[in-house]
Amino acid sequence: MDAAEFRKSGKQMVDYIADYLEKIDKRQVFPDVEPGYLRPLIPDCAPQDPESFDDVFKDIEKIIMPGVTHWHSPYFFAYFPAASSFPALLADMLCGGIGCVGFSWAASPACTELETVMMDWLGKMINLPEEFLAGKDGQGGGVIQGSASEATLISLLAARTKTIRLVQSEKPELTEADIMGRLVAYASDQAHSSVERAALIAGVKIKNVSSDDKFSVRGSALKKVLDEDKASGLIPFFFCATLGTTPSCSFDKLLELGPICNKENIWMHIDAAYAGSAFICPEFRHLLNGVEFADSFNFNPHKWLLVNFDCSAMWVKKRSDLIGAFKLEPLYLQHHHHESGLVTDYRHWQIPLGRRFRSLKLWFVLRMYGVRGLQEHIRKHIRLSHQFEDLVLQDERFEICAEVVLGLVCFRLKGSNELNKELLKSINEAKKIHLVPCHLREKFVLRFAICSRVVESTHVEFAWQHISQLATDLLKAWEQNHHQQHQQ
Amino acid sequence: MDAAEFRKSGKQMVDYIADYLEKIDKRQVFPDVEPGYLRPLIPDCAPQDPESFDDVFKDIEKIIMPGVTHWHSPYFFAYFPAASSFPALLADMLCGGIGCVGFSWAASPACTELETVMMDWLGKMINLPEEFLAGKDGQGGGVIQGSASEATLISLLAARTKTIRLVQSEKPELTEADIMGRLVAYASDQAHSSVERAALIAGVKIKNVSSDDKFSVRGSALKKVLDEDKASGLIPFFFCATLGTTPSCSFDKLLELGPICNKENIWMHIDAAYAGSAFICPEFRHLLNGVEFADSFNFNPHKWLLVNFDCSAMWVKKRSDLIGAFKLEPLYLQHHHHESGLVTDYRHWQIPLGRRFRSLKLWFVLRMYGVRGLQEHIRKHIRLSHQFEDLVLQDERFEICAEVVLGLVCFRLKGSNELNKELLKSINEAKKIHLVPCHLREKFVLRFAICSRVVESTHVEFAWQHISQLATDLLKAWEQNHHQQHQQ
Repeated sequence: MDAAEFRKSGKQMVDYIADYLEKIDKRQVFPDVEPGYLRPLIPDCAPQDPESFDDVFKDIEKIIMPGVTHWHSPYFFAYFPAASSFPALLADMLCGGIGCVGFSWAASPACTELETVMMDWLGKMINLPEEFLAGKDGQGGGVIQGSASEATLISLLAARTKTIRLVQSEKPELTEADIMGRLVAYASDQAHSSVERAALIAGVKIKNVSSDDKFSVRGSALKKVLDEDKASGLIPFFFCATLGTTPSCSFDKLLELGPICNKENIWMHIDAAYAGSAFICPEFRHLLNGVEFADSFNFNPHKWLLVNFDCSAMWVKKRSDLIGAFKLEPLYLQHHHHESGLVTDYRHWQIPLGRRFRSLKLWFVLRMYGVRGLQEHIRKHIRLSHQFEDLVLQDERFEICAEVVLGLVCFRLKGSNELNKELLKSINEAKKIHLVPCHLREKFVLRFAICSRVVESTHVEFAWQHISQLATDLLKAWEQNHHQQHQQ
Repeated sequence: MDAAEFRKSGKQMVDYIADYLEKIDKRQVFPDVEPGYLRPLIPDCAPQDPESFDDVFKDIEKIIMPGVTHWHSPYFFAYFPAASSFPALLADMLCGGIGCVGFSWAASPACTELETVMMDWLGKMINLPEEFLAGKDGQGGGVIQGSASEATLISLLAARTKTIRLVQSEKPELTEADIMGRLVAYASDQAHSSVERAALIAGVKIKNVSSDDKFSVRGSALKKVLDEDKASGLIPFFFCATLGTTPSCSFDKLLELGPICNKENIWMHIDAAYAGSAFICPEFRHLLNGVEFADSFNFNPHKWLLVNFDCSAMWVKKRSDLIGAFKLEPLYLQHHHHESGLVTDYRHWQIPLGRRFRSLKLWFVLRMYGVRGLQEHIRKHIRLSHQFEDLVLQDERFEICAEVVLGLVCFRLKGSNELNKELLKSINEAKKIHLVPCHLREKFVLRFAICSRVVESTHVEFAWQHISQLATDLLKAWEQNHHQQHQQ
């Protein structure tokens, strides 16, 4: 395929994507396929000779689409949103076209520099303390990671290195293995599984800190476990606070936790993967209060800020902590400006070496929506979640299971977990909308997350009517069953 | 921006990318900018109100392009190739348009299943042993990682978990920390820095194994260090063999190393990041002989197989080893088909949770080039590297520093490292072509890597004439200096 053919097929693809997104509400949100559906539909091995674009293009509807879960459907209320917008798609096309690999400043200066400046823009939008910004000669700065998991891992690794060095300077008789065996990381019992995974990767212990009845970690709960662990000779070194937990969008109490971490020399990382985007609205910024105590902070514009996956925004107060954890400098990666101090080599800030020109997506989205456009998007979602909450509250058969702060509603039928599992099953088998569950303590709970860029009040209304009807049917069948069992 | 505007601006972007790539040889391969060039060119913060696509579009040439290193220019001979092709760009557009996040089977069945099947296609293209393929009920299988660094890290972590469990089952008195402190990973002294980094992340020791005079690790070298380490109570657990090292594209001797690793119960991972693509040509497949001894194997189609970054292909013989290293199952990620055995949840195979629909790129590229088209691409590059090698060999002032096997030529002026540093400096300051150096033992060496999809014999010829002329100028100046110093 040459440039001329690409002009033609590229435009065909642009129209296909526009059609797909424009009419996505007409597609069934969750696919009908069973595991293993795809293999029989395509050959066993790659063709020896080239096929035409038309052949491949036809197979998109035939082979791919029947197996796609449509994350951007206005009937998709599962997980958390995956961001998607036209400006981000345009930027990603450009990113692919340029196709540079920006692991160092010299490997493509624009790729590095736009990222530094965009992370400053974004940091200012959520009013991050100045220490987190790169500015002209700041010690902090931002970086685009692929995912919140990587941001958590990188910050935990930086904390591990920093602590090992500190302990060794105080107690030179201890080996690295001795210290590693005593390090403990902490996170809420509501924290995302990626935090536990980061500790597993780093080879250190991790402990859950109990959350309170609003699913928030309080200072007292952290202090209790720290005191116990220190008394038994362990070395607490890392706490991951969550703003907007995955199960219920609860918020750890930064203003209580931050001072404890600072006093105890514990690295505080804040994972605000979903909730972070809301902080661009002044009325939600208070949820971030206490970030001034943190060492690192992360949220995912690729969740809720209309920047397509992947774009996870991470900031640190001291870039030297990240870089110091890893810096390795083979000759083929050194360059002339290497020691200048004005240059950022982002490969020292992340797990992989290679990196795409992802800041283009931020640049396009922030400019083509403007701060106000993005605030509107966030506010619409939060308005819709409260609409759903109100509908649930008006129905006595149901209960709300956690405070609705942003775009997530946790709800259930009053009654057993079995009943609620049945309800979710009937919802997802009907495939008119798509939800996933969570556990809150012992309760099996349904999560209703406002996800799509194009979801409107009517879709929420439809979803509720549908759920409500399925509940009626279910309760009737349930009662009949119960009645029959009683008679037997 | 709505779908209608996207149709318009998307097509404009397609033309821009086609223009960019069609005329990339007219652009200076390496930019003129100094560090910090970009910040003064754009505002301090994001705009409050939306800007138009036209405003943003104009800034691409004004702000971005002056700072881009043009990786796809036929005058780019640095690092290793970054793949780029029109079919891959089309597939990436579609990937963005669908915008699903495929962390589990249910999150988008097509995303998971196409990946499994494409990895089988690709595995068959390089004639991987059947054990590495997923097939219908295989224990192995392939996964697309973001980078070779991640593949190395994941395999090292799987090996770490496996070894800790094994040692603990034999010696229950040992704690995990005790064992961690005694684990040792190994790689060639020529291995990529990401291997050392993986060990740093995992918190285990890593040792270099000395390579021979052809920069290859031999069985005897590995055996020597293993024997020493075992005698001193350490636990060897992981060896990363490299096929196609970054400095000189040398090959570790798999047929000697594999049996040792198998006998000693050491996980052998093969990193063939660059070289792997060449194994689709039967005449180069012998370089992969010995892969049958490996536990995991990785190469980067995003380097040399015309699939745009990121697409790093990794296979394992036992998927349970990868999954067992991490598996964590919160409720919101469980799904109906969870336990069926037919379902792959790729999030257990990788560091991040989220993942894009990257297998579309493989599907488009393999079909639209066909195996023969991709073989032609590889063979052209290798022909061109030998062309350059011949030119160097015809000039008595120069020497070839390592066997030219694939698309990389390591060469230098006979003489001091200082002289060669000066030569590289004059090449890169002239900015007609772009190269990076390496060290081979004590020698400072220039790396000439065939990179661009559109590089032809004339570009190689030009590059050599240019280097040769710069060498003439440099040697003259050098001699004059020497003469003057002699006279003083």
